[in-house]
Amino acid sequence: MKRIIVGATIAAIALAGSVMAQDAPFGMQIKARQGIMAYRALNIGVLGGMAKGEAEYDAAAAQKAADNLVATAMIDQSMLWPEGSDNSANPASTADAKGWTAEADVGGKEEAFVTAAMAMQAAAGGGLDGLKAAMGDLGGSCGGCHKVSRIPK
Amino acid sequence: MKRIIVGATIAAIALAGSVMAQDAPFGMQIKARQGIMAYRALNIGVLGGMAKGEAEYDAAAAQKAADNLVATAMIDQSMLWPEGSDNSANPASTADAKGWTAEADVGGKEEAFVTAAMAMQAAAGGGLDGLKAAMGDLGGSCGGCHKVSRIPK
Repeated sequence: MKRIIVGATIAAIALAGSVMAQDAPFGMQIKARQGIMAYRALNIGVLGGMAKGEAEYDAAAAQKAADNLVATAMIDQSMLWPEGSDNSANPASTADAKGWTAEADVGGKEEAFVTAAMAMQAAAGGGLDGLKAAMGDLGGSCGGCHKVSRIPK
Repeated sequence: MKRIIVGATIAAIALAGSVMAQDAPFGMQIKARQGIMAYRALNIGVLGGMAKGEAEYDAAAAQKAADNLVATAMIDQSMLWPEGSDNSANPASTADAKGWTAEADVGGKEEAFVTAAMAMQAAAGGGLDGLKAAMGDLGGSCGGCHKVSRIPK
């Protein structure tokens, strides 16, 4: 009997977890913005793999990944970050409330990402050396925002 | 003691759940594509709210939502749908394996969405009647793909 109750409780929690992602406060916004970040991470992974020598340099694939990063910069994210949609409102988010303060300057940090992505777009297809050179600013621009706006792991 | 064990089990499951989203097979791809869908849903929600009279018609907001939908059509999704990345590989996905079959024609259905989104883009800012008229094809294009490629709820 106890087993059944525990089983049912776990099932209920699992269900609550999946419902939560959609219906909890800001669930859709969090899902959308995390998805955009995952998309960026996948494309940066392609470039990073070549930069680190884990994958062979492929000009077309590198160019496509860089183009994809720039495309995400064209996505209007203004409705995805309502004030209060941080980790304290919904644990599915790893956003820290201090990301909404003026001094965090996440707008400026997103702009740094766009600049770095465009530099990568200009370089990625032209050879491994250029790709490597553009990688530092690109990775740095991700970290620049994450450092000030994400809750510590 | 039993309580502690149950508590620990639940905590472990919750942790497994959150780790799974990133590290399970195709976790990043699923997160990215679900995020793009959530982004589309948010913007369709803006348009649908006006069409249903739940929100006042606002030409600028309608135009922006329609522009956002078209912007998602510019996102290259080719790396997000590797064969096998359906619900059977990772329960976080609601994608049905039959979405990868030729007869499901999800490529054609995505094109129908792009066409409908572009029609909405042309209409949304020009008045509520035009927005309402474009809504049917747009909603239909979402459902068209979901019907053949998503596991039943």
